[in-house]
Amino acid sequence: MKKCVHVLYVVIMLMSALCVSAQQNVGDKSLAMVSPCVTGDDVEFVLDMPNARQVMLRGDWMAEPVAMQQRDADGCWYYMCQDLAPGVYTYTYVVDGTTMIDPSSVYTLRDVGQLFTYFIVGGGVADYYMIQDVPHGTVSQQWYHSAAMGYDRRFTVYTPAGYDDGDRLYPVLYLLHGMGGDETAWSELGRAAVILDNLIAAGKAEPMIVVMPNGNVAQQAAPGSSARGLVPVVFHEPRTCNGEYESAFGEIIDYIDTHYRTYRDAGHRAIAGLSMGGYHSYYISANMPATFGYVGLFSAAIDARGKHAVYEHIDAKLQQLQESDLRLYWIAIGSDDFLYDEVRLLRERLSAMQCPYIYRESDKGHQWSNWRLYLTEFLPMLFR
Amino acid sequence: MKKCVHVLYVVIMLMSALCVSAQQNVGDKSLAMVSPCVTGDDVEFVLDMPNARQVMLRGDWMAEPVAMQQRDADGCWYYMCQDLAPGVYTYTYVVDGTTMIDPSSVYTLRDVGQLFTYFIVGGGVADYYMIQDVPHGTVSQQWYHSAAMGYDRRFTVYTPAGYDDGDRLYPVLYLLHGMGGDETAWSELGRAAVILDNLIAAGKAEPMIVVMPNGNVAQQAAPGSSARGLVPVVFHEPRTCNGEYESAFGEIIDYIDTHYRTYRDAGHRAIAGLSMGGYHSYYISANMPATFGYVGLFSAAIDARGKHAVYEHIDAKLQQLQESDLRLYWIAIGSDDFLYDEVRLLRERLSAMQCPYIYRESDKGHQWSNWRLYLTEFLPMLFR
Repeated sequence: MKKCVHVLYVVIMLMSALCVSAQQNVGDKSLAMVSPCVTGDDVEFVLDMPNARQVMLRGDWMAEPVAMQQRDADGCWYYMCQDLAPGVYTYTYVVDGTTMIDPSSVYTLRDVGQLFTYFIVGGGVADYYMIQDVPHGTVSQQWYHSAAMGYDRRFTVYTPAGYDDGDRLYPVLYLLHGMGGDETAWSELGRAAVILDNLIAAGKAEPMIVVMPNGNVAQQAAPGSSARGLVPVVFHEPRTCNGEYESAFGEIIDYIDTHYRTYRDAGHRAIAGLSMGGYHSYYISANMPATFGYVGLFSAAIDARGKHAVYEHIDAKLQQLQESDLRLYWIAIGSDDFLYDEVRLLRERLSAMQCPYIYRESDKGHQWSNWRLYLTEFLPMLFR
Repeated sequence: MKKCVHVLYVVIMLMSALCVSAQQNVGDKSLAMVSPCVTGDDVEFVLDMPNARQVMLRGDWMAEPVAMQQRDADGCWYYMCQDLAPGVYTYTYVVDGTTMIDPSSVYTLRDVGQLFTYFIVGGGVADYYMIQDVPHGTVSQQWYHSAAMGYDRRFTVYTPAGYDDGDRLYPVLYLLHGMGGDETAWSELGRAAVILDNLIAAGKAEPMIVVMPNGNVAQQAAPGSSARGLVPVVFHEPRTCNGEYESAFGEIIDYIDTHYRTYRDAGHRAIAGLSMGGYHSYYISANMPATFGYVGLFSAAIDARGKHAVYEHIDAKLQQLQESDLRLYWIAIGSDDFLYDEVRLLRERLSAMQCPYIYRESDKGHQWSNWRLYLTEFLPMLFR
C-alpha cells in the first residue's frame, strides 16, 4: 500500500494566461483535498468536518455503515478500506444523521433520488468498467414521439465506433432500467457505453446499437430533463408495471429501425433489463415472438404486477417465443436477491415446458455490481 | 410568497409492485427534505446539520456569502432569498469551512473542479433556460480522431429536432468553452440545448447544428470521461492558449462536414465562445477568412497568451476577415468583467480599421449568467 497524498495543493497559476482571481467563483472551483484516494485496491476516505460528532461511511460494498475516526492532528474524519475487489463503488457520508456525497470529489452518480460519490478499483472485470484508450462509440440523448402515450419521450442510444463512417447495418440491443431508474441509468450507473467500447475493442462483443429507453410511462425523461422541472425524485413512478409500456414497445423499435441502420430480424435484435427492466423484457419478448432472438433477464421481477393483456396466457406465449427465432434466453440473479424465488419459479416453469435457457447465479443481491457484471457477460453472447 | 413545505414525506409504497425494502440502498435513494424551495422568485434554503457552528450560503447571485440562521425548533439552518431575478443560479454551503452542495438536491452542475447545486427562477429570459414542452433536439457525446494531436478527442453536438427525419442541410455553430471548461460546459452549465430548443420552437432561431468541442488540447475529454480516470480537476489545463488548438481547428470542421448534413459556406457557419473560447473564436476566425460568416466573442480574452503564427499579424488578418464573407461580428461583455479593457482596446482597433462590429454591454462580470444571456441573444442573429 502506497502512502496517499491527501492534500492536493492545486497550483493556481497566478501568472497564467487569464487572470484567475477575477474568474467567477474560481476559488471554489478547485478542490483542496483529494478523497477518496484509491491506491491499488486500498481506498482512503477523508472528510474535513471537525465539528461533526459522528460521521458514518455508507458504502455499497459494506453490509452496514461504518464509523469514521476523527484524527487529533487536523480534526478530519478518516477511514481506510483495504483489499477491495475490482469494481465500481458508490458511497455517501452520514454526518450527524445527514447523508451527503464526499465534498472532495466531483465524481457522482444519481441513483433514484440520491447522489453518491463513486470510484473504481481496477483489475479483473472492472477493467471493462474503466475508460480505456480504445475507439469510443457515441452516446446520444434523443427524443421520439410516442403515439401511444401522446407525448415526446427521451431515450439514450449508443452507436459503436465507426457507425458514422460507413453504411453497414448493425444489430440492436434494447437495454431496460429498473424501478426508480430512467433512460440515463444504464449509461451512467451501469457504465454501459464504457463496457461496450471495451468489449467491442477487445473483439469480445459485436459492434451493436444499444437503445436505453425510459420505462416510466409517466415520465417524458429523467428528472431535471423534462418540462416537469427540477422536481424531487420518487422511487416508484406510476404507470411502470401496468402493461402500458410493454404493449407500446413496438413504437420504440419502429423508431429505431427507421432512424438507424439496423438489421430488422430477430437474429439481430436483443432485449435485456434489470429488475423492473427484466420484468419488461420478460413480457415484451413473450408478447412479441420472432422479434428478439436474445433475451436477458437480470435480477428480474417475474410475477405480473398489474392486470393487462400482456400479462395473460404467459406460458403459452413463452412456448410460442421458444418456437420462434430464439437463440438465447439468459437468466441471471444473485443468490441474495429478494427476487430469487420468483426467478426460481420461472426456471422451474421453463424447465417443465422444455423451454431452454441459460442460468447464471452470482453472489450478492439486487445491486449494480451484479448488473454491470451481467451486462459484461451477456454482451459477448449476442449476435454471433 | 407561499409557504414552503420543507419535509417531503416520500411515500415509499411498501405495498407496491416491487419489494422496496430489499432494493439496494433504497432508503438512501429518496430525499426526506426539499431544498432549495423555489416559490416564484423567492427561494428558501434549508440544511439539516444541527451540530455545525457556522453555515454560509455562497450563491452566484450574491457578492459575498451570507450566514444562514439556525432555528431552535429543529436545529436546521435556514436562509430565504426574495425577489430573485429570472435566471439559473448555482450555490454551495460552507459548513464550518467545508464547501459542499445542498444534500437535499440531486440537481448539480460541475464548474471546473467544484460541484454546485442549481435552481432556476423562471420568467423573462429564464423561460428560455427552462425545459419547455417543445420539440427537442438530440445531444450527443461523440469522438473524432485528431490527426494534429495524434489521439481521439470528444465533442458534444446538438442536432435540432427533425434532423433525423429529413435530408435537408443545416448551418453550423461552433460554440467554445472557457478556461477550466470542457466539451460539457455549454450543454450543462450553459443550457445550450435547452436554449436552442426553445428559440427554434419559437421561430426565433434557425434550426442549426451546434458543435461544442473540447478546447483543452491536453485533454481527450472532460474529467472522468477519458482514460485519465477520475482525476482531480484543474483550472488551467496546459496547451490551451498556445496556438495549437486554433491552428488545428480545421480538422474539427472537416469532421463535422463529412459526418453531418451541413452547408459548407461562410454564410452558414458561425463560431462563438466565452472567455478563452472567445479568444479561440477570435483567432480561429481571423486565421480562417471566408470560413465563418458569424463571429461571437462573449467576455473574450483578446491579447495573445502565447507565441504562435496564429497570433501574428492579427490586424491584417482582421482586415482580410472583414473583406471575406463576414455578416456579423458580435462582441459582448459585462461592465464589471476583468477582461473589459482588452475588449475595449479591440473595439478601438476595429473602429480605427473601419471593421464593423456590434457591441453589447451587459451588467455584471465574467459569469455564466452573462454567457447564457449572450447565447440567447446571439442565436437569433445567425443564418438569416
